[in-house]
Amino acid sequence: MSDRPDPTPIRPTGRTRVRRNHARADYERETVHAILDAAPSCTLAWLLDGAPALTPTLHWRIGERVYWHGSSASRTLRRAAGAEVCLNAMILDGYVLARSAFNHSVNFRSVTVFGTAQTVSDPEEKCAALRAMVEHMVPGRWPGLRAVSARELKATSVMWLPLDEASAKLRSGGPVDDEADCALDIWAGTVPVRTAFGAPVADPKMSAPIAVPRHVLERFARG
Amino acid sequence: MSDRPDPTPIRPTGRTRVRRNHARADYERETVHAILDAAPSCTLAWLLDGAPALTPTLHWRIGERVYWHGSSASRTLRRAAGAEVCLNAMILDGYVLARSAFNHSVNFRSVTVFGTAQTVSDPEEKCAALRAMVEHMVPGRWPGLRAVSARELKATSVMWLPLDEASAKLRSGGPVDDEADCALDIWAGTVPVRTAFGAPVADPKMSAPIAVPRHVLERFARG
Repeated sequence: MSDRPDPTPIRPTGRTRVRRNHARADYERETVHAILDAAPSCTLAWLLDGAPALTPTLHWRIGERVYWHGSSASRTLRRAAGAEVCLNAMILDGYVLARSAFNHSVNFRSVTVFGTAQTVSDPEEKCAALRAMVEHMVPGRWPGLRAVSARELKATSVMWLPLDEASAKLRSGGPVDDEADCALDIWAGTVPVRTAFGAPVADPKMSAPIAVPRHVLERFARG
Repeated sequence: MSDRPDPTPIRPTGRTRVRRNHARADYERETVHAILDAAPSCTLAWLLDGAPALTPTLHWRIGERVYWHGSSASRTLRRAAGAEVCLNAMILDGYVLARSAFNHSVNFRSVTVFGTAQTVSDPEEKCAALRAMVEHMVPGRWPGLRAVSARELKATSVMWLPLDEASAKLRSGGPVDDEADCALDIWAGTVPVRTAFGAPVADPKMSAPIAVPRHVLERFARG
């Protein structure tokens, strides 16, 4: 599947057209892809007896599809299969501290996708999707792993949504205060937020010491 | 409102009883409170024409209630008012790298709350809730801010859910690999994840230089 994004923006629908602060909306596929690729996790909404329910989960992307997985016995996945779901991935980039409580905000990048959850049933396609999951989490890790067994594949459900009904919403920059407030003796500004990683902690169950591999060090360079 | 948690655990319902990996479930109020207080943001699920929709937002807690806010004109808030919603806040604590793709996981702390969204209509109660929001974001910031105006209060909707139907789910520790896999020559372990803050960036619209106040430096100590 080619990963070169279609240059045509995603067409907003009644559900994905951003209404509040619509200047912050973005329907470019490249923006949607970049946010999904950068977000470590997402939240999936599904219907439980007619009411909304939420499950945080890991997601990954292959082309114009966003994937997630779970136990084949999971209630979330069984209820979501073939049903309308909504997926949101949000990255918090900063706190925006204004002169008034009202103008406090956060900088963020967010993607919301609506659609009918599809299930991957073909075992080879499922295995390829799980490979993409591991490679999204830690690029370069898959080739060195113990091969996936038939039992593990069966115990895993992999699902996806097409990125047809998707939108991004972003905020960046400093506080937007009322002009009169800017003369007040109040410090205002932004505080950048980022994800940092600690040093890898080796599993004590290793029978002999194994050096932390380069793919782990590179992915989780401390910052 | 006293903030000493009721020592009685929250009674799980059909919706909040954790089914998968139920050893990771926690219904203690103190756990639920601590996760909600530590999570910088949450995701809110609501019904849009019978299908689930998602909105990431900031939340805060006062006693046994979790609050969020938005524009009074917001579609999310208008649809959520008086309706069944679900709120989830998740903190990613680490990547768990196993010997098999199947046993890869993440360490996390998550809270899910179900209930009927309530609206704060009393202006004084709304103002107190917004104060709690700012103090949750940056303790010590509220007293120095320009006072909230009647227009701003009117333009803001504040909503809440009781923490009656809530549950926490947590994972910590290293990979849980098949015993036979532990002899393989594959590095396994965990990589801790945390939120780090950059140096505060002053808003260039300040008419004279103002030092970064202590409440900002203390809240966002770089890490």
